[in-house]
Amino acid sequence: MEDLYVIKIGGNIIDDEILLNGFLRKFAAIPGKKILVHGGGKLATRMAEKMGIPQQLVDGRRVTDAETLKIVTMVYAGYINKNIVACLQSLHCNATGICGADGNSILAHKRAGSGGTDYGFAGDIDSVNTEWIGSLLHQGLAVVTAPITHDGKNQLLNTNADSIAQEIAKAMSKSFHVQLIYSFEKAGVLLDVNDESTVIHSINPSYYQQLKAAEKIFAGMIPKLDNAFTAISQGVKKVIIGKGEDLANLLNGKSGTTICHE
Amino acid sequence: MEDLYVIKIGGNIIDDEILLNGFLRKFAAIPGKKILVHGGGKLATRMAEKMGIPQQLVDGRRVTDAETLKIVTMVYAGYINKNIVACLQSLHCNATGICGADGNSILAHKRAGSGGTDYGFAGDIDSVNTEWIGSLLHQGLAVVTAPITHDGKNQLLNTNADSIAQEIAKAMSKSFHVQLIYSFEKAGVLLDVNDESTVIHSINPSYYQQLKAAEKIFAGMIPKLDNAFTAISQGVKKVIIGKGEDLANLLNGKSGTTICHE
Repeated sequence: MEDLYVIKIGGNIIDDEILLNGFLRKFAAIPGKKILVHGGGKLATRMAEKMGIPQQLVDGRRVTDAETLKIVTMVYAGYINKNIVACLQSLHCNATGICGADGNSILAHKRAGSGGTDYGFAGDIDSVNTEWIGSLLHQGLAVVTAPITHDGKNQLLNTNADSIAQEIAKAMSKSFHVQLIYSFEKAGVLLDVNDESTVIHSINPSYYQQLKAAEKIFAGMIPKLDNAFTAISQGVKKVIIGKGEDLANLLNGKSGTTICHE
Repeated sequence: MEDLYVIKIGGNIIDDEILLNGFLRKFAAIPGKKILVHGGGKLATRMAEKMGIPQQLVDGRRVTDAETLKIVTMVYAGYINKNIVACLQSLHCNATGICGADGNSILAHKRAGSGGTDYGFAGDIDSVNTEWIGSLLHQGLAVVTAPITHDGKNQLLNTNADSIAQEIAKAMSKSFHVQLIYSFEKAGVLLDVNDESTVIHSINPSYYQQLKAAEKIFAGMIPKLDNAFTAISQGVKKVIIGKGEDLANLLNGKSGTTICHE
């Protein structure tokens, strides 16, 4: 099967024009099939502030009310998505930007409220249209995905970019040898969270159990790693966690942490 | 050759949720291949006001400075484009939204200033990627186009939606029997601009010369009609001008004004 890279970048790269341009240069240089999933960054929050729309947070997560949905749709699927595509085009990397409504690429449902908490227009993913995304890739396009999905009933939904990357990676694994790369502020999974030189080069399931038992994994990393192992168990070949700025070395195994079967 | 409808809608439909939903229902019902080109509407102006960005007009046209480009990219390629696509999906019309950067679909250049006037980031179209747009249509997708293009050098450009519709229609004429529909506030080209019952049913080049000589054409319509005849002379089969709300009747010739060779 052919290789496919699914690469997720977050705010630390998106909010920094120099980092973003540097990253896109490396992304454009990857030969073969690739999907970029971008998060939001701080622009949506700044826009909401400028427009006087109060932002409500529950457990550190933004609640997507109707006005906030409008803003994230504009910023994520409009501004960030199209600027990334225009930059890739200038680097001779033909790309197209999509959100989950385009080509019905990602169907989701509105997250149910719980314990009195309404998450608003937040989407949990139901399915990925692998045929359509595959056809774009086979036409030689890089696919740039904004973290907005839809429910098929005329409702756009704000959706976690990590989840989008993971669901795309899992779904595309039926037809491709998929490597899922999470760009991160740290150089990888660290044995000592304060020391960037303690990157763990690779983790397989049994080593992960050992590290967890010895409490060597920073609590904040556990959900990310659990998700990575779920992806691995569902067909993704490798999950790599590290700095997007160092993309070439993440892909050739010289930096970052690789999560794999063996 | 197969039929292709290229339909342009403007602010009068986009700004009115009920009109827009009604229009999209009719658009979704068109069998066969179709492209929707949408303009901007008033939301971008309202956003700019809320954010305290002064809007500069030259000859009634908005000057696209860097901040305004940011806003129109967000509103046109993000909010309006993705909401139209989500609505079409809910009507079981598979669609994808694009701007000119996506798939390198519309290349433009920044309009040169003249007589001391700088139009800012306004784009004049150089070429349309008919192969890519054709491939989307052949996959059974309706294509929804936002009035944002790019110059291939990492610059997005604000571009007149009428011009986008016209250039797409002309370029696609090599492979399709293209009908170009301009949705308009009036029922068509009127003999008496104050009387909606005086719609001219069809205009060919010689009748147009007669009407112009007799000063029966409202001055504001002349550039639109000149453009329509240019499109006709460059391969487009028909240009139809009328109310988008009445789409089915525009397509079957029961309403609106048809511009054609004969």
